[in-house]
Amino acid sequence: MAALRARTVLLTGSNRGLGLELVRQLLGGPRPPAWIFATCRDPEGPRAQVSARLPLPPAPAEANVADPTAITNAVKIVEAKLSGTGLNLLINNAGIYAPVTLDTVDSEEMIRAYKTNAVGPLLMAQAFLPLLKKAARESTDKGLSCSKAAIVNISTVMGSIERTAESFFKPVISYRCSKAALNMLTKCQALTYGETGILCVALHPGWVKTDMVSVCGYCPADLTVDTSVRGMLSILPILSEKHSGSLLNWEGKVIPW
Amino acid sequence: MAALRARTVLLTGSNRGLGLELVRQLLGGPRPPAWIFATCRDPEGPRAQVSARLPLPPAPAEANVADPTAITNAVKIVEAKLSGTGLNLLINNAGIYAPVTLDTVDSEEMIRAYKTNAVGPLLMAQAFLPLLKKAARESTDKGLSCSKAAIVNISTVMGSIERTAESFFKPVISYRCSKAALNMLTKCQALTYGETGILCVALHPGWVKTDMVSVCGYCPADLTVDTSVRGMLSILPILSEKHSGSLLNWEGKVIPW
Repeated sequence: MAALRARTVLLTGSNRGLGLELVRQLLGGPRPPAWIFATCRDPEGPRAQVSARLPLPPAPAEANVADPTAITNAVKIVEAKLSGTGLNLLINNAGIYAPVTLDTVDSEEMIRAYKTNAVGPLLMAQAFLPLLKKAARESTDKGLSCSKAAIVNISTVMGSIERTAESFFKPVISYRCSKAALNMLTKCQALTYGETGILCVALHPGWVKTDMVSVCGYCPADLTVDTSVRGMLSILPILSEKHSGSLLNWEGKVIPW
Repeated sequence: MAALRARTVLLTGSNRGLGLELVRQLLGGPRPPAWIFATCRDPEGPRAQVSARLPLPPAPAEANVADPTAITNAVKIVEAKLSGTGLNLLINNAGIYAPVTLDTVDSEEMIRAYKTNAVGPLLMAQAFLPLLKKAARESTDKGLSCSKAAIVNISTVMGSIERTAESFFKPVISYRCSKAALNMLTKCQALTYGETGILCVALHPGWVKTDMVSVCGYCPADLTVDTSVRGMLSILPILSEKHSGSLLNWEGKVIPW
């Protein structure tokens, strides 16, 4: 199986759940990146310390993805460490989730979820675009790949309008709407950035038992974090231009919009 | 052809373009509603005066759909006029549109579009739900219909992720993301409100030459406002439970998500 050859990776929401496990497995893989920038909202908090205690600690950086100033600061930190080279892989993993129905949701919760789950990934891609383009230019690989330059947006099947009915027992209206918008964003990013050599894809990690998901109280999660992350990391190396602009599950299967 | 028999209709964004023409044609139809509540952000403004000068003026009401307080006030006005009867048809037509690309859009524009195009319709449906449920209970019709009780969200093919590529020359990222979210909202409303007798559908009015669309400067609009509205009003009477939760164009054809 092909291995991921991304030399530099930035990942948001790295202090718990899928984000933390992505950092762990990337560092423990056959070809660990030279740099993993593991951002989170509160790098001084107790959760972030878990990631800092890994055998090979990633470079922590504060990046509240809902805060444009925090993102600008993160770019400066990353640029300084990379010393003129590009960023191969941006994984927009940070996300929030609240158990709200059509009856109970309010304007504030709708906006809160949208800011973090859709606007945040947009701002991160805008901010790191010069570094992603640089990585694409530096690469001698043909076509698109996650080893060359890519934006991976961690989405969900709950953002699939087509498949809403099958998970509708989960009362997460603000999450669903924000993730449908994230899926649209991914398609637009693929259409815009493809010609500069950047692959853009949305991934559904599966029904994984994480802190975030368990708050809804209806979760039939049957995947461990380890299995989900292992699956996602095994498909990243085989993605190419034919996958760009799609929503795929952790096993690489296309999910309809 | 079946005629729309909705006795009471509320329509947002009624002071121009499609909204104004919807009011005109509803009033001029074979069975005009007893009440049309035509809301807009600024009912004292010059545009709203056009609608107030119609032969049978609709009942104006201020309802900035991005402002929960304004919506609550609109409910009070409508309830007082309806004297205990229900609301048959809520048409969420208010929408905004800005010519922005992935490079030029910022957080504020993303949120602004989302508030009006996705959160507004959600709040309107929440607020008018008791009146819509009342209309459904009052009706002796079987199944779901726009004459009985319905939420019609005016959406767009530009909210279709599947069909993004074909209109991607239009640089409207904030609009696309907000309308993908509106499509998700429509599906969730259909799944939630169907059992209480309320039909929920999203409509694409076609490529129509309106003030809103022409600001983008790339518009190949080939439909007149008159033709688009005539088309939409001709399909409303034939919608049933099989259409609820879908995105349809002005001729009633299903658009993929």
